[in-house]
Parts: sequence; C-alpha cells; structure tokens
Amino acid sequence: VVVSIIGLGFMGGSLGLALRRDAANTVVGHDPDPQADAAALERGCVDRTESTLAAACADAEVVVVCAPVAALPAVIDQALSAAPAGIVTDIGSTKEGIVASIDAAQRARFVGGHPVCGAEVRGASQARADLFDGATWLLTPTHDTDPARYATLHGLISRIGARPVAIAPAAHDRLVALTSHLPHAVANLLCSQAAQGRIDGHDPLAAVGGGFRDMTRVAGANPRIWVDIFLDNRVALAAALREHRRLLDDVVAALERGDAGYLARWIGDAAAARRSTLAAAFGDQASDLHRLALHLPDRPGVISGIAQAFGAAQINIEDLALEHFSPDRGGVLEVVVAGADAAQRALQLLDEQGYAAVATPLVSDEDAP
Amino acid sequence: VVVSIIGLGFMGGSLGLALRRDAANTVVGHDPDPQADAAALERGCVDRTESTLAAACADAEVVVVCAPVAALPAVIDQALSAAPAGIVTDIGSTKEGIVASIDAAQRARFVGGHPVCGAEVRGASQARADLFDGATWLLTPTHDTDPARYATLHGLISRIGARPVAIAPAAHDRLVALTSHLPHAVANLLCSQAAQGRIDGHDPLAAVGGGFRDMTRVAGANPRIWVDIFLDNRVALAAALREHRRLLDDVVAALERGDAGYLARWIGDAAAARRSTLAAAFGDQASDLHRLALHLPDRPGVISGIAQAFGAAQINIEDLALEHFSPDRGGVLEVVVAGADAAQRALQLLDEQGYAAVATPLVSDEDAP
Repeated sequence: VVVSIIGLGFMGGSLGLALRRDAANTVVGHDPDPQADAAALERGCVDRTESTLAAACADAEVVVVCAPVAALPAVIDQALSAAPAGIVTDIGSTKEGIVASIDAAQRARFVGGHPVCGAEVRGASQARADLFDGATWLLTPTHDTDPARYATLHGLISRIGARPVAIAPAAHDRLVALTSHLPHAVANLLCSQAAQGRIDGHDPLAAVGGGFRDMTRVAGANPRIWVDIFLDNRVALAAALREHRRLLDDVVAALERGDAGYLARWIGDAAAARRSTLAAAFGDQASDLHRLALHLPDRPGVISGIAQAFGAAQINIEDLALEHFSPDRGGVLEVVVAGADAAQRALQLLDEQGYAAVATPLVSDEDAP
Repeated sequence: VVVSIIGLGFMGGSLGLALRRDAANTVVGHDPDPQADAAALERGCVDRTESTLAAACADAEVVVVCAPVAALPAVIDQALSAAPAGIVTDIGSTKEGIVASIDAAQRARFVGGHPVCGAEVRGASQARADLFDGATWLLTPTHDTDPARYATLHGLISRIGARPVAIAPAAHDRLVALTSHLPHAVANLLCSQAAQGRIDGHDPLAAVGGGFRDMTRVAGANPRIWVDIFLDNRVALAAALREHRRLLDDVVAALERGDAGYLARWIGDAAAARRSTLAAAFGDQASDLHRLALHLPDRPGVISGIAQAFGAAQINIEDLALEHFSPDRGGVLEVVVAGADAAQRALQLLDEQGYAAVATPLVSDEDAP
C-alpha cells in the first residue's frame, strides 16, 4: 500500500516506522517544517519526503493526516484534493467536529481515526515502530464511507499490529470525554482547589501524600495542546462534567443525611468498576493479581536488587509504582504480580533480601485501607 | 517513657516497634483480641501485654489509642480513667469530633493525633519499626491542653523519627478533607461514572487507559473503613465537595463560552500547584527532576536490567511507574531522576541496552502531551 503521512512528528514518524516493517508498504512523508522531514528521513520513518503536500499525496492509496488539531480541517481538505483516489484519515483526539467539517462530496473518502496510545514525546527522532502494537485504533466510518476504501484502511491498521474498532463520531467523543478528558479536567480541579490557600497556616499542597500526587500526575499538562482538546470536545466534556456534578451532589446529600448504606453501596460499585478496568488491562490474570508492598530506603541500587531477583526467578512484574515520600525517608514500593504462587515466591525472595513485604489481592473487596 | 498502646494492629504494632528501638521506653500493649496480643508479642512490638485495658494503662505516662474510628470515644474515655497521671492520644484520621467528645474535666490530658503515613496492611505481624520515620504526625492541642504532658508526647514522637506538627482540630479535618478524603471521593466518582453503561455499544471501563487507572487506584477501597472516615469527616468533606463543584461549574461555563484564555490560566495554575506538591515531596531537587520514558516488553527481567545499570552508575531512581497496557504489548516505564547530568547518563545507559528512551523535565510548562 502506498501511504502518505502528512505531519512527521512523534506519532507520524512512529506510524511510518510501523508501516515500513512491511516491505509491501511505501511511505511518503511531508511536514511543513523541513527539519521534521529531515529527522523523519534520518530515522527511517519514510521511504522519501516531498516538499509539498500535493506531491506527497499524489499516488497515495491512504493518507494519514498527523497535523495539530487546529490545523486538521484545512490539511484534510488539501489531502482529499491531492489524493483523488485515496482514503484520508487523521489521528486527532476528537472526531465529531472534524467528520462534520468534511465537504459532502468528499465524505466517502474520509474516515476519522484515533489511535489510543500515549505520545510521551515530540519529534520523529524519538519515533517508535512498536508504538501501536496491540493498541486500540478507533475509526469513525459513517453511512457515507466507501466500503472498499474503508477495508483498505482497516486492513492497514490491523497489519501494523493495532486493533481497529469502529465507533460513531459522536459516541467516540462521549467515550473519550468520559475516559480521558474528564479525569484530566478533574486532576486540574484537585490541584486548583488545593492551591486556594493555607488552612490555619498549613499549605495543603505541602501536606498532600502519594495518593494525591498519583491522581494529579496529568494536571497542568501542556496548555497549548490541552486547551485545544478541551475546546474541541467541549460539548461532550461539559456533559461529562455536569454528570460528575450530579453524582457528586448525590454523595453530598448522603453525607448530609449520614447515610452509611448509600456510601457503602457507592464504594462497592466503585470497587466493581475498578475490577472491570483491571480485567480490561490484564485479561484473565486480573482476578489473580497480588500487590506486594514494602518499604524501601532511598539510595541507588535497591530497586535493582529486587527486580533482579524477580527476573532470575521468572516472576513477571505486571505493575510497579514507587510512592516517594521524601529523600530522607525513602518510599513504599508496590509491585504487582500475577498468581498466588508467584506472590508467595516473591515474598520469599524479598524476605531473603531483608524486606518485610506483604501481599494483598489487588481486587478484593477486603483490601486493607 | 512508659507507653501504653491500646489496639495492636499494624499501626499500633509498628508504633511499638518504633518506640522499642529506644531502650529507655517501656511499651505495654492491650488488644481486645488475644490473638492480636500474641502476634504483637511474637513480633516484639511490646515489652508485655495485659489482658485488660485498665492493667495496660495503670503506669502509663503516654497512652496511644489505636482503635477503629467508631470505637475511639469509648476507648479514649476508658484510657483517661485508667491512666490518671498520663496523657492520652489517638491516631484516628479525623479530629474535631473526637476532641469535642472528651469530657471537659479530662481535656487537659487528651491531645488528638494523626500520623500521616499509609497503612498498607493489617496486623501486628506485618508491623514495621520505620513506618513513621520522617512522617508528619499531626497533633491537635487546644487551650485546655496541659503543657508539660503535651511536651512529653511531642518529644516522644520526635524521638521515634516522626515530625510532630500542631494544628487546630477543625483545621486538621479541613486539611485532610482537601488532601485525602476529597481525592478519594473523586476517584470513586470517576469509577461510578464510567460504570454507568455502554456508549454506542462500547464499555467505557474497557476503554480507559493508564491515566484513568492511576487516578482510580484508591477507588473502592475497603467500605467498612471508608464509610466511617467519610461520615466522621462529613462536614469538611461535604464542604470540599461543594467547592469542587463550584470550581467545576466555572470550567463548564468557560467551555460553554469557548474561553481559551480561562482554560489556559486554569491549566497554568494547576501546573504551578503540581510543582508545589513536587517541591514538598522532593525538596531542592524538585525543580531539576527529569522523567525518562521508554517502551518495555512484558517479560521477566527487563526492569531488572535497567535498575541494575542505574544502580551501578550511582543514578538514584526518585520515582518509578509502569503503565501496563496489556500482556501482549508491554507498557511504558517512567523513571524519574534528579539532575540533568543524571538524566543524560541514564539516557546513555538505556541506549546501550537498546532502549530508545526520552527525557523531559518533570515540572516544565512545556511537557509534551
């Protein structure tokens, strides 16, 4: 397949690398920034670059537009004209607006796309061929979509190792509002609120623990990107925030009437939901995950000793987190392993290294506090 | 100092171990459950146990009540009678109600307490002598408090390595509502909302990513404990939730009027707040932390190789998280190190092991998305 990638940053570059693992694909790239073109060429993301979008798209069967959200409508429009036989898609994080913006005469040849995987960095020089391996790649075909061209795009995404999933554009935006934009906004809200000032002389921001830091890891992320994302999905995000407020009001009312039964059911429902998210991430192992917690001094090499012992014993680390309390104090290392047997062997290994670790099932209702 | 610990679970047992590192302390314990007494004795948490609270408190200069929240008023009252010369404190997570419940004639000898450190597990058999090292230990003296007895308690807490901080009881409850109970409630809310049902046939709980799982790690925790905590602090928690709703309404309004300036300032404020929390956790290093991100296959030993290379090069791992995407796909390992030099050396080491990692400053406004 001849694929044109317009926009050769980290995502576009990684897509090029992924496509070029298959010699049957030809990847032609274009970026308005000549330095981005050069970086993508040097990293091997593309077979060649072209200095104009039109030249890059001329022979394309598939055009993937990896431009910033604000530039998408114009660039997609140009791509549809420049590749008169091809199908055009994008990788933006919202879909309803962009699908609606497509000229009626061109709708057969545009399908919105959204690969769900983190872009931790910028620039094709950091691109990764395996970025999309196993990742969900949401696609938003409509009744206007040309079936044959859609099949070409769908097959291409499957063959690079991603999992294409079709969803209606509006449903896509509601789904990402709920699973991504709402949590992001709530992380910002928690930070704003804790920053409102001292309580009796104590700064809340200095009093937060690892739990608060976990919940606000994404807070304050790049405003130039997130303002666009929030505004682009403002209808669905505002609806999700209003629903969050409605559920919050129910909890406030339960607190005010001292309703222990309501709160217990609410917590139980949250526990069930959390189990579902773990099942989605860990598959069959989810019901048999065990968390080992141990206190760790803060000095080089201590994590290494533990990881090495686990590796030697063929115990796979499913998840790992270090709650850093302070430089003097060290932190608590949490390691998640699959299976009661692995957990027991891990406890034994830790004991041999002098760590008094404890194991608890990850998804039990009976978690210790 | 002769210290009596009433309630020999993980917290009471750990306190006993911490106190017994100093031969000048004598620790007498009591738990209504004889098996808890036996476990604490076997683990060396106490010098001796007594079968009644009265006998355990008879000679105590300090009594620390480590009972469940619901039992606190009654047990504290018994302890005040049983230790007529001593000072009594507790370790409950809310303070205004318990301080108000103390009989006026006894208020000179009761000071509320709250060591701020995670209790990951249950039972004295898992107790840790270093649990309180460097931890903030909030104390709520009032104008009724006897200064000499308070000095005894304050000194005892300092000498086990914790950091006593005095705060008014009501301010304590507002502070923990904001920094602990509100984030916990919001994590439950995010789970409840994502569990409300399918969107166009897609289960939101199966579509969440690592960010959502980070934010909901505490969701659904032990209802038997958290219902009590929420209800005990319901006034301050309801106030914090209402303030959360007020800030949320401002964001909804900004979204509805498409106010990019408001959203950018809001994100910027959240970024500043997050920097403050990092400064509190990491001290002087906070402004020079660097996050290295790399893709990791999911098999035993890979983390070990990395941690070992860092340890050998004397690069200290300040923070660590594994975002587990799926068993097929592996995950993204995030490692935080202090100093640009350490970050460069770490990148070099990773490159030698074949990992294409990237480093970004942790607290820059210019974080990649």
